Amino acid sequence: MIVKQLLMMGAALSACCFFMTYRALAIPPQEPVIRLAELQIDPAQLDDYKAALKEEIADSVRLEPGVLKLYALSVKNHPNQIRMFEMYRDQASYLAHLETPHFKNYKTTTQHMVESLTLIETEPVLLGSRQP
Amino acid sequence: MIVKQLLMMGAALSACCFFMTYRALAIPPQEPVIRLAELQIDPAQLDDYKAALKEEIADSVRLEPGVLKLYALSVKNHPNQIRMFEMYRDQASYLAHLETPHFKNYKTTTQHMVESLTLIETEPVLLGSRQP
Repeated sequence: MIVKQLLMMGAALSACCFFMTYRALAIPPQEPVIRLAELQIDPAQLDDYKAALKEEIADSVRLEPGVLKLYALSVKNHPNQIRMFEMYRDQASYLAHLETPHFKNYKTTTQHMVESLTLIETEPVLLGSRQP
Repeated sequence: MIVKQLLMMGAALSACCFFMTYRALAIPPQEPVIRLAELQIDPAQLDDYKAALKEEIADSVRLEPGVLKLYALSVKNHPNQIRMFEMYRDQASYLAHLETPHFKNYKTTTQHMVESLTLIETEPVLLGSRQP
């Protein structure tokens, strides 16, 4: 009887260890995905481009829980140079964002306005944010 | 009596209008100051640089109410290329930040580690942020 109990405890402990190891291997701690984009826009179409971009950003943060921040900036004195700072909850959220109707619509609408596009993948060093 | 009341109401209304116009002219709506920085760090000193940078970021967001965000990133597969995204409440907050002991200490400590530094002033197009 004692042997049987010990065997059962051993089996349970092994299963527990296996499960915890599996989790540790399979599910790394969530870290946001942060990407930068550098765009040059045709100056003649800048107003149209900015309107399309603003609509896409508003839709994304409203409809997608995994889109944490989409900051669009223009370089001072070079208004047709746009810089994007994009933060997604995780890689799956970023990939899902690319498949949304509003993102696809933005890409189609603006493809003839964008003269160049550089995408930069990054890794966080430290994300310092003032607590409200 | 009625004339006196009307005159007083008129004077109060004028004062109110003047005050509101003055405020609108003198105090424009606050817009955050957002700056980008692109740094190349001596690879041999990268660990020391990142330690100094993390300390500076932690001190800034803890001690300065006008420092809203200091995001430090490294470019994927190019760990010695650092990108900064900096958001300050306003221009005065940014200028005050440059005078703090922790920022000055960071600049002194890291001046021999930084191979190149490009500062980019920007203007917001749209700052999209998911509401928690």
